[in-house]
Amino acid sequence: MYRTVNNGELRKDHVGTEVTMCGWVQKSRDLGGMTFVDLRDRYGITQLVFNMETNADLCEAARNLGREFVIQIKGKVIERSSINQDMKTGEIEVQVNEIIVLNKSKTPPFTIEDQTDGGDDLRMKYRYLDLRRDSVKKNIILRSEVAFHTRAYLKNQGFLEIETPVLIKSTPEGARDFVVPSRLNQGEFYALPQSPQTFKQLLMVSGYDKYYQIVKCFRDEDFRADRQPEFTQIDCEMAFVETEEILKTFEGLIKNILFEAKGIKIDEVPRMTYLDAIKDYGTDKPDLRFDMKIKNLESVCKGSGFNVFDSADTVLGIVVPGGANFTRKQIDSLTDWVKRPQIGATGMIYCKFNETGENKSSVDKFFDASALHSWKEISGANEGDMLLILAGKTSSTINAIGNLRLEVANRLNFRDPNVFKPVWVTDFPLFEFDEETETYHAMHHPFTSPKIEDLELLNSDPKSVRANAYDMALNGTEIGGGSIRIHDKELQKKVFNLLGFSDEDAHEKFGFLMEAFEYGAPPHGGIAFGLDRICAVIAGSDSIRDFIAFPKNNSGRDVMLDAPSKIDKDQLDELGLETK
Amino acid sequence: MYRTVNNGELRKDHVGTEVTMCGWVQKSRDLGGMTFVDLRDRYGITQLVFNMETNADLCEAARNLGREFVIQIKGKVIERSSINQDMKTGEIEVQVNEIIVLNKSKTPPFTIEDQTDGGDDLRMKYRYLDLRRDSVKKNIILRSEVAFHTRAYLKNQGFLEIETPVLIKSTPEGARDFVVPSRLNQGEFYALPQSPQTFKQLLMVSGYDKYYQIVKCFRDEDFRADRQPEFTQIDCEMAFVETEEILKTFEGLIKNILFEAKGIKIDEVPRMTYLDAIKDYGTDKPDLRFDMKIKNLESVCKGSGFNVFDSADTVLGIVVPGGANFTRKQIDSLTDWVKRPQIGATGMIYCKFNETGENKSSVDKFFDASALHSWKEISGANEGDMLLILAGKTSSTINAIGNLRLEVANRLNFRDPNVFKPVWVTDFPLFEFDEETETYHAMHHPFTSPKIEDLELLNSDPKSVRANAYDMALNGTEIGGGSIRIHDKELQKKVFNLLGFSDEDAHEKFGFLMEAFEYGAPPHGGIAFGLDRICAVIAGSDSIRDFIAFPKNNSGRDVMLDAPSKIDKDQLDELGLETK
Repeated sequence: MYRTVNNGELRKDHVGTEVTMCGWVQKSRDLGGMTFVDLRDRYGITQLVFNMETNADLCEAARNLGREFVIQIKGKVIERSSINQDMKTGEIEVQVNEIIVLNKSKTPPFTIEDQTDGGDDLRMKYRYLDLRRDSVKKNIILRSEVAFHTRAYLKNQGFLEIETPVLIKSTPEGARDFVVPSRLNQGEFYALPQSPQTFKQLLMVSGYDKYYQIVKCFRDEDFRADRQPEFTQIDCEMAFVETEEILKTFEGLIKNILFEAKGIKIDEVPRMTYLDAIKDYGTDKPDLRFDMKIKNLESVCKGSGFNVFDSADTVLGIVVPGGANFTRKQIDSLTDWVKRPQIGATGMIYCKFNETGENKSSVDKFFDASALHSWKEISGANEGDMLLILAGKTSSTINAIGNLRLEVANRLNFRDPNVFKPVWVTDFPLFEFDEETETYHAMHHPFTSPKIEDLELLNSDPKSVRANAYDMALNGTEIGGGSIRIHDKELQKKVFNLLGFSDEDAHEKFGFLMEAFEYGAPPHGGIAFGLDRICAVIAGSDSIRDFIAFPKNNSGRDVMLDAPSKIDKDQLDELGLETK
Repeated sequence: MYRTVNNGELRKDHVGTEVTMCGWVQKSRDLGGMTFVDLRDRYGITQLVFNMETNADLCEAARNLGREFVIQIKGKVIERSSINQDMKTGEIEVQVNEIIVLNKSKTPPFTIEDQTDGGDDLRMKYRYLDLRRDSVKKNIILRSEVAFHTRAYLKNQGFLEIETPVLIKSTPEGARDFVVPSRLNQGEFYALPQSPQTFKQLLMVSGYDKYYQIVKCFRDEDFRADRQPEFTQIDCEMAFVETEEILKTFEGLIKNILFEAKGIKIDEVPRMTYLDAIKDYGTDKPDLRFDMKIKNLESVCKGSGFNVFDSADTVLGIVVPGGANFTRKQIDSLTDWVKRPQIGATGMIYCKFNETGENKSSVDKFFDASALHSWKEISGANEGDMLLILAGKTSSTINAIGNLRLEVANRLNFRDPNVFKPVWVTDFPLFEFDEETETYHAMHHPFTSPKIEDLELLNSDPKSVRANAYDMALNGTEIGGGSIRIHDKELQKKVFNLLGFSDEDAHEKFGFLMEAFEYGAPPHGGIAFGLDRICAVIAGSDSIRDFIAFPKNNSGRDVMLDAPSKIDKDQLDELGLETK
């Protein structure tokens, strides 16, 4: 036995016990005749103590231990003279009587501390050392917990875990596929799945009425910050269900995850339509941790001779609570912020509703006291608040004010990482219309069912057809989305056609699914959550990369492995391939 | 709500209840004025009843339902006049008052029955219909259960589930890699993992001392029967452990799986060395459901002037219990069986030890009564048994007698599919020596540690070095294997060199692992089980394909999807590739 206890478990009760322990040398300190070594493993840190007077050789050996050496020690648990309240094992220390060095370590290229001196590139190259840091370890453990409780909840709800294949057929479903050349079928390729969408629908046709899988998915995208070429979905599908049953089942899932992983209980998950989300929050993934809804100010702002408003398609505002106290500098900084190219507003108008009752706007030349009063009324501002206004083209202004809302909340610390506010957003449009190419794209994917009451509009006005689709947003981030699927071959054909697939295309790519619909396909629907994303959001992080043990960088490289890499000509020959 | 109950749950207690149900039409029968429809879903079958006298229209509608139509019905639970003991719902039936056809079905290309009329190719093409059959459904559900209880057990033992990447670097670890061309790094390729071996070792270096993952692995092999290009492993690794702790932990896993999935309790898992397994059973994956150990008969068979024995390297036998009753025909059939090219014996000698005390062999010309008596003594045969003897070159005779042992057991029904006998086989040789190329191959993989006491032999006699490696066999099938790993850079280098890697090769392929060993690598070891294989063995099946929802055929094709397939020239251009 290498060890009898780990480094997280010794308490005052253990005083007097003989123990054998293993771990890494976190740090050592020489204090007069004593040497202290912090021994670390996955479970915590234990302080080891060596006394020069009672055992000089051993103490000398301890002084020669380098950082990150792997050691085994034998010793006796003793009470600490000064208790460390910040450590689980802070009541005790271990008086060592034997050290065995299991493996030495070169000095690591960065410190194994929460606040490390290692830059991003260095940490990624030595990811196996980065993973030793407590801050990274917490994320990896959180992910393991989330995955486990997801499975336990879904099993409890009667879901079967069913694996679907990774080597599948290339189909143009949104992003680019990664492909895998076949050696046994030269000139042909498998594709890696962007999602198991068609397989889970086939499983519904097969009668497995509650399916789930925590599954790797792949997208060959041009890399953006915080996208990974491989990512993990909690993928689920149900048969003989309507939207209501799906929303109930999966708000149960998110409640369960938050409770098991974070100890947080949440109430019922509110719902809003896509149109309301855009109107009130300027986004389809609203952050509900704070209010600050968007107000339409057109009726009180337009027609007063102020050209910025009069020439705008829309005039929108948000009320900043307590904003009347903002300094000139704070306001200028926000104005600069909305004018950045990423946001793209041409300017920002403000109006302070002072505690004194006096109102002061940045456009007082154009609007008198009664106008400002009407602004206050319509926006629902109180004394002490400030109204921020953006005007311009409808869609860009909605987007800009939605972003401004989040930025103001950031600055006012309204986005508390310990508060969790999930929300269902429903009734998405079925199609997005691309003005440039005059083509329709599926907003979710081509298998999403239109709402029955909008079926007629498929012919007359496809743009206004609503989908039986729903997303879950948590704290301003989309963490999952899904829909009721089409289960009728003719309707599926029609939607494919509207999306620009010819019948031949549709048959070539999804023939097996369309054929399956002819053999008794039940009504069905489902959802997929981003596991990486859920972990990031509930840990209050912006980056999914921190929750992946071995992530790739923004150019899709694994810098630790140095992958991708060249392969041998023999390998290429066997595949019947040439590189250009 | 589409349904208030499923088709598996109605019992006598529910009589009188109004229900709404959904499912597929399994079959219908018209009996005089009554029509009976069996409604099927994942949970079972419910008998629906329609009465021509009381509701002619509805009864007519029921008669028009085709096989595999998806319907919703409303009705009332009534008691059956004749109870069907074979069905969970056999006490009741549902008197229907409304039918809604949710989707029609064409006549399926084969019957959805356990004994279907569909051939293999047809069932694979319409796998989504094949999956509806009860016999296939049981397998898929078993797999889901095995996976769940594996996770629950390992979590309970303190294991973390950690995902490792699918897009990795190509390394020549046994079989061929599947590769994935990179678009963003043209001319370079990712590889799909044959196993997460190096990653799990890195996780040990990172301090995650108990890791597991149920993970897809990929091998581009020339397809053999019952091999799949993608398969699933239960992959595990532990740090600060010796063999004993690993064997204890994972025999716990297999006990847990057998108990949870099959309700079977087993005792401690026996252990034997590789050499003993070969000696006693002629294989490193012995079936311990029956005894019939191999006996070495050289001392009593050689030197009597019978050339077959005298010229043989070895003479081996097995005792067939009750075999004295075998007919000439039965013996001839076994002789033919061992002479098949797959077994390759030149002949078989037998000796019957009759109940009467008289012994009779097929070589009485050469061996007298006292010789036969010594055969009986040394083989431990009883009266009524028969001794079967093979002779020839050592390794082929061991192999042949091991196979004969299984074949005799098959014929005598000694291989009861409801009995489970796992066994650990330990102390495998570290290397296999390829006589043809005069090179060493790793018997497990190049990361396996030699036994400490055999370290010296690495220089003097590599062939005789034993590995710290262990396999688990269950009922004659290898279901898992693993080893204590090398955690010392110099030892790893030496093993790579013996395996024919130059230092440059080793650095090129596994540089990151060797480098990691310099930063405090702990002692570690692990194991991987084949999930597909475990499911097959515990269901008493020979084929892993039956336990995979969407398997590939023996040429690596998914005939349902028609994958692999050609891809567009645009896609190839983006990847910088040309097919020859």
